[in-house]
Amino acid sequence: MTSSAACCDLILFGALGDLARRKLLPAMYQLEKSGLLHADARIIGVARDSLTDAAFKQQVLESLQQFMTKDPVDEEIWQRFVGKLQYCEIDLSDLSAYDALAKVAPLTKGRTPISYFATPPALFPLICDGLARVGLNQQPSRVVLEKPLGHDFKSSQKINNHVAQHFDESQIYRIDHYLGKETVLNLLALRFANSIFADHWSHNTIDHIQITAAEQVGVEGRWSYYDDAGQLRDMVQNHLLQVLSLIAMEPPSRLDTECIREEKLKVLRSLRPITDRNVDEDTVRGQYTKGFVGDKTAPGYLEEKGARQDSNTETFVALKTHIDNWRWSGVPFYLRTGKRMPQKRTEVVITFKRQPHNIFHETVAQLPPNRLIIRLQPDEGVEIQMMNKVPGLGKKMQLKPTTLDLSFYETFEDKRIADAYERLLLEAMQGNQYLFVSRDEVEYAWRWIDGIRAAWEQVAEGPRSYQAGTWGPSASVTLLAQDGREWDDDA
Amino acid sequence: MTSSAACCDLILFGALGDLARRKLLPAMYQLEKSGLLHADARIIGVARDSLTDAAFKQQVLESLQQFMTKDPVDEEIWQRFVGKLQYCEIDLSDLSAYDALAKVAPLTKGRTPISYFATPPALFPLICDGLARVGLNQQPSRVVLEKPLGHDFKSSQKINNHVAQHFDESQIYRIDHYLGKETVLNLLALRFANSIFADHWSHNTIDHIQITAAEQVGVEGRWSYYDDAGQLRDMVQNHLLQVLSLIAMEPPSRLDTECIREEKLKVLRSLRPITDRNVDEDTVRGQYTKGFVGDKTAPGYLEEKGARQDSNTETFVALKTHIDNWRWSGVPFYLRTGKRMPQKRTEVVITFKRQPHNIFHETVAQLPPNRLIIRLQPDEGVEIQMMNKVPGLGKKMQLKPTTLDLSFYETFEDKRIADAYERLLLEAMQGNQYLFVSRDEVEYAWRWIDGIRAAWEQVAEGPRSYQAGTWGPSASVTLLAQDGREWDDDA
Repeated sequence: MTSSAACCDLILFGALGDLARRKLLPAMYQLEKSGLLHADARIIGVARDSLTDAAFKQQVLESLQQFMTKDPVDEEIWQRFVGKLQYCEIDLSDLSAYDALAKVAPLTKGRTPISYFATPPALFPLICDGLARVGLNQQPSRVVLEKPLGHDFKSSQKINNHVAQHFDESQIYRIDHYLGKETVLNLLALRFANSIFADHWSHNTIDHIQITAAEQVGVEGRWSYYDDAGQLRDMVQNHLLQVLSLIAMEPPSRLDTECIREEKLKVLRSLRPITDRNVDEDTVRGQYTKGFVGDKTAPGYLEEKGARQDSNTETFVALKTHIDNWRWSGVPFYLRTGKRMPQKRTEVVITFKRQPHNIFHETVAQLPPNRLIIRLQPDEGVEIQMMNKVPGLGKKMQLKPTTLDLSFYETFEDKRIADAYERLLLEAMQGNQYLFVSRDEVEYAWRWIDGIRAAWEQVAEGPRSYQAGTWGPSASVTLLAQDGREWDDDA
Repeated sequence: MTSSAACCDLILFGALGDLARRKLLPAMYQLEKSGLLHADARIIGVARDSLTDAAFKQQVLESLQQFMTKDPVDEEIWQRFVGKLQYCEIDLSDLSAYDALAKVAPLTKGRTPISYFATPPALFPLICDGLARVGLNQQPSRVVLEKPLGHDFKSSQKINNHVAQHFDESQIYRIDHYLGKETVLNLLALRFANSIFADHWSHNTIDHIQITAAEQVGVEGRWSYYDDAGQLRDMVQNHLLQVLSLIAMEPPSRLDTECIREEKLKVLRSLRPITDRNVDEDTVRGQYTKGFVGDKTAPGYLEEKGARQDSNTETFVALKTHIDNWRWSGVPFYLRTGKRMPQKRTEVVITFKRQPHNIFHETVAQLPPNRLIIRLQPDEGVEIQMMNKVPGLGKKMQLKPTTLDLSFYETFEDKRIADAYERLLLEAMQGNQYLFVSRDEVEYAWRWIDGIRAAWEQVAEGPRSYQAGTWGPSASVTLLAQDGREWDDDA
């Protein structure tokens, strides 16, 4: 186990909101439970509501009880935890209101103020100004920013510029919670601590790579919010491109923020642009219609509460791209994400090239390629699909595809898999940025996404419809089929 | 499941001997149980003893009861099986006696006579002559020869020449029971049906290969017999070189006898000779002294019953060799086999090259190499040793070597793993030679072994002593240590 974090004041903006209640407060409780919070650390909940400390603490307890379903609140740990909680009422748009915060959490030697912006991004500039007014932007202060950071390159640049007026890049922690997942970190170990994988990690042996992030849910009552974004901006710009850059990056010189960010950025810079020349061929947009997800009827996107009938927003996107560098020349990356899919599943599938010659053709007409599957959701794990001989006698050798579980979690049965937010909060408290997204990464990702959106606008057709509970429009299947490939839907 | 074998008469010479009772008759029973024996197949036990059919059948039943410890004899299967048994009394050295055999099992259209020589090799020429006298050498007759086929190149050539007077090479099935093991066959599937292994199978990614065949037993009351042979001839010439040739061979064009034998032979031809110039450096001989194996005291080799005090015979041998071809240039193969070792264990360990650069040096000073372990005994299985991240939080990533069980047997839980002799008997009945050893292979292996023995004779020193229950003389450790490597004794 690591040493506990330095003594921090976690200033939680949006403390009564959904993210704080579901994720951040339970994560802090778990860090307390694991002994990773400094004894003098504090969690200062900030919101507009008029609440006493006692009422806030009661609300936190209720949130823990509601959302930590697998792990009932332990009285002894709660007593340690609750002593760290405080509440601070602020109208975030009122600069003078931040004086109250300065009284509760003044910049003090030996304490690091960490402001976590779990609020709508529109408030980020206001909060930055407020923090600066009371000196909570000065070293060693840090800010943690939740997505979305803008809705295109320009707006993200505007936000980043504003934050940069008050904070140095080294103080800014941009969250992408996919980077906090155990499997994503293990990917670094797999790739760089095992020559059997490292030696295979290029166009020499890899045929193509698929990244899928499928959700079963629809817009969950936030139609207007979602409709302004769409799946490309909501999922591809951040999560999928982050995973892609970790999968594709060159081995970093060191396992530190500078080296890893540099390598990830090189990947984003090398993404082949999608323009009006290839957008029809290489992208598929979809919008779900009424169907069945699980065993339940699900309404169509345009039938959701608050829907505008003329919406052209995509709830599904599949695309094919290339990374134009030496390592990945000729290896397509297929990205796919959608709402109202048959399963909740996020995974990376690395398909190796086929054997050049099949000596088993009498029993297996075509040998399937080996696949390495890195699963991020719902269960984190790593698998390899390979061929084995079926035990038994016989002149002709019978082979069978076998899935080998490379998940090592069984080996470490006593270890609980930490939630991504626990890891990211801890890393922020420890002042380690390598699992956070740099400004350059955000902006390069947006530029690439903007290119796709601009190309879509040149195209007459809007998204194709797909029935809720299916894997998207059939054009998504065609996207791979025209290259002689298929999505790994049975994994 | 495969189709049952053609209708065969298995003529079992040495039917009352140890091999027949322990292995061959139980294997035939299991084939009966699996429905793989032709309904009209027969098993004709041949020996010198005067026995009735009924007495022979009773002896077979007792053998099954004694040696099939995991699988009690089933009455219904036994009834089917016993109907196939017959006994034929022959003095093998009396040519005219074979007429009796011809009466019991004359060459008949639609029946294939298969003569299995489970006798001392000195009798092979006599049996061949006898079979030829009564026409049981004519097509489609087959002979199955047990090891040892000679004790050096010359004597093996003499046996092979004699057998060849009466039988064509296509009729001759030379047994090496290692080739009947499930794991050895799965090695072909691993190597040639999975590009992730095929692409790694050369000096580019492999550092070195170890083959170990360790026995806990001593000479088991056969001191004189064993002393004439020694470990090099008893184990290396056949089993270890056969496994080595399957590991090292080029991908065959087809999965058939001709192609596989050709590739295996190329390996044996490419073995770098060990001569008086390098024998001291590249081989280690040992002879065990008194010690502890398991928890029991074991006598020294020279204290065994019937021992000659001046014996120079090795009970342990370790050697380093190279395969002088393109694929294996610079990759040493370390072979090791001995009696009175700490464990019974036969395995191949393929050690991949280390990562060129370690980005995890803060937590792991030196990353261990990946290893692929193919275990033949006591439990058949395949494992890979790799590094994984230890789940958990922390700034510095903790890694741990993890052993992944690539054994697919769990996937096929209903499948019993057949004994090697079941497979080999079935293959012989099906007329499939690819798991049997060709004359050329036997003779090339002997030439290489003879070279080592000749070089040993030039050396003043005899075998070094090692205590029973250890991994041989310390010089065996040095053999690898001088190359910066070590035996995989903890696997």
